Amino acid sequence: MPARPQAPTLSPAATRVFQRLVMSGDASRTALANDTGLTPGAITRAVRPLLEAGLLDETGDRASSEGALGRPATMVTVRARAHQVVGVKITADQMFGVVADLRCQVLDELTLPVTDLRPDAVVAQVAELVDHLRAGRPEVGGVGLAVSGDVDAATGHVAYSPFLGWRDLPLGELVARRTGLPTTVENDVRALLTGERWYGVGRGLSSLALVTVGTGIGCALLVNGQVVHGSFGVAGEVGHVLVDPDGPLCHCGNRGCVEAIAGSAAILDGVAAAGLDAGSVGEVAELARSGQADAVRVLADAGSAIGTGIATIANLLGAQHILITGEAIGSDYDVMDPHVREAFEERAFGSAARSAIELRPLRFVDWARGAAACAVEDFVTHYGRS
Amino acid sequence: MPARPQAPTLSPAATRVFQRLVMSGDASRTALANDTGLTPGAITRAVRPLLEAGLLDETGDRASSEGALGRPATMVTVRARAHQVVGVKITADQMFGVVADLRCQVLDELTLPVTDLRPDAVVAQVAELVDHLRAGRPEVGGVGLAVSGDVDAATGHVAYSPFLGWRDLPLGELVARRTGLPTTVENDVRALLTGERWYGVGRGLSSLALVTVGTGIGCALLVNGQVVHGSFGVAGEVGHVLVDPDGPLCHCGNRGCVEAIAGSAAILDGVAAAGLDAGSVGEVAELARSGQADAVRVLADAGSAIGTGIATIANLLGAQHILITGEAIGSDYDVMDPHVREAFEERAFGSAARSAIELRPLRFVDWARGAAACAVEDFVTHYGRS
Ligand SMILES: [Zn+2]
Ligand SMILES: [Zn+2]
Repeated sequence: MPARPQAPTLSPAATRVFQRLVMSGDASRTALANDTGLTPGAITRAVRPLLEAGLLDETGDRASSEGALGRPATMVTVRARAHQVVGVKITADQMFGVVADLRCQVLDELTLPVTDLRPDAVVAQVAELVDHLRAGRPEVGGVGLAVSGDVDAATGHVAYSPFLGWRDLPLGELVARRTGLPTTVENDVRALLTGERWYGVGRGLSSLALVTVGTGIGCALLVNGQVVHGSFGVAGEVGHVLVDPDGPLCHCGNRGCVEAIAGSAAILDGVAAAGLDAGSVGEVAELARSGQADAVRVLADAGSAIGTGIATIANLLGAQHILITGEAIGSDYDVMDPHVREAFEERAFGSAARSAIELRPLRFVDWARGAAACAVEDFVTHYGRS
Repeated sequence: MPARPQAPTLSPAATRVFQRLVMSGDASRTALANDTGLTPGAITRAVRPLLEAGLLDETGDRASSEGALGRPATMVTVRARAHQVVGVKITADQMFGVVADLRCQVLDELTLPVTDLRPDAVVAQVAELVDHLRAGRPEVGGVGLAVSGDVDAATGHVAYSPFLGWRDLPLGELVARRTGLPTTVENDVRALLTGERWYGVGRGLSSLALVTVGTGIGCALLVNGQVVHGSFGVAGEVGHVLVDPDGPLCHCGNRGCVEAIAGSAAILDGVAAAGLDAGSVGEVAELARSGQADAVRVLADAGSAIGTGIATIANLLGAQHILITGEAIGSDYDVMDPHVREAFEERAFGSAARSAIELRPLRFVDWARGAAACAVEDFVTHYGRS
């Protein structure tokens, strides 16, 4: 482990100030006091140990919003590079790693193929990836892992990951032992949500729903400013919201779930049943753009199913913002977009229709950045706390 | 206003101890330290001003769980009668009032007919009800009002109450001015949830869903220990979860919502369409019990719709406990019970099926108690805080 100075003891107020700063990058002391409700004296006491630890900087810049009286406002800035983390998204065939700083800027990235899904082999390979990425970077002080399935973030256990074939795997502990670094494990969609919450559209929002569209339909929810984990490991299963009781069979055993209509496999099955030949959702979208009626219908049904799913989220939770993302969103899924919005508006109840709906493509690096955001969150939340 | 001693200044820790005690009624100092994570010294500092204010008592009782070493454990007890509140549920034809103590025990109750729904008339009548109930009770120090519809609890405004015909009514402010008492206003179903959270099945739970079945299907949600209010005033609309796109028309404009199948009017419409004569859900239940096939089918469909609705809640939120309640639950709705559970088990995804499902009758006094619980919560949360 790199030699790092002992962390100072931080008060809960200091942790709040640190979180606020990591989210925004910088702020004047006045803004910090306004946002946290602390007195200027308390801000000074909160900031001092973080300045001394080299995690913050202070500058006498004249902030335009505060220069009215001609007094230079003291700006406090995060020294983003002072603490770095490795974030890794593990899939069944590849692992994507990034080094990111406290502001979740990606400094380096590396992808390794996964050939052996046995836990020992995966742990060894994660350690190899981490070692490559941390070489020459003594600032790297944590690892975040993102894995699909039922993950207990509190313990770092993977309870069940169907795609990876794991059950009850203490992944966090195993990787921490191999790398010597504190290791955070989170469900991959909740990791994406954490990234959006700290650095993206979720900053300052108390409620946000993030829906990932691809082979499966994933979802993570922020309610009252907190990520929903579910009492029994299950939450955000918008993929199994009922759309049509006479619809296609879903792997969950029911008929007509969102995922059984809008998942990639469902879309390909839908056009194959109409006698069309398409190997990807992209090809189905091509057919639809050229006016092929069955392709249009299958993608319209998929879009409507997603719209019904997100309307259900809005009706139950009153989400402020709903972000629909996925590798193909914004390109292949553009054909679906109007159907998503139409079904949402039809089924959203009253003012629940005011949720902002955003469709945005997802790059693979975003998953690893989400994992890194979890490691940063863990660092900031626990730094200097006993 | 009754002359009351000035409240002392309480620390956040003292407020936490007070909340913990009001929820449980009493606790040993050791249990308080364990539950709140505070040191014994901090517990002493937290308890002292509340003892001095006459809100708590201390006794040297030997607590059985702590008597092993023969040392008497100091028990701290809530002086429940020291602060009382009036809780009122307002409907379009009656208002139900109770006086309740800090433990939400009902000390007295009174019902008045509502003949004039104009805001001024209702405010005058609420004031009359409060005056009757507080006569001879100088301990009454707050009012809680429960109203159906879109209520902003933070401001005490009723944004929209379709049953009462109100829009943008500053109800809390108007009643506070007339009664001279701090007044809390909450959506009626969320008020019920607040009662369960402080004094009922919700104590110690971080997630709870409460569903009310009657003319409408209401729902309030507790997630991560906090009540969900929704970003735009709408939340918990399980009544408009889609069950069957070819189902009966709902007042929201869609087809086949839970409420369009399981609401009382939908049930009566369903049997009327089959040529049966029933004036209440109770009569439909009678017909079903006597084997009448259409009545059986209509109630089975209603039960399945409710089961699908609560499975959706479990899948999205991983609720620990789901309480289904309503005036007729446990009597008329007994015919539905197995269908609710069957549909729930079918549609709950994976371990979401582990949510505890409870069906329980609802007495009218429970609504007023829920309103009282909101007033107690407001008192305990703000007592001694600047
Ligand atoms: Zn399904
Ligand atoms: Zn509806």
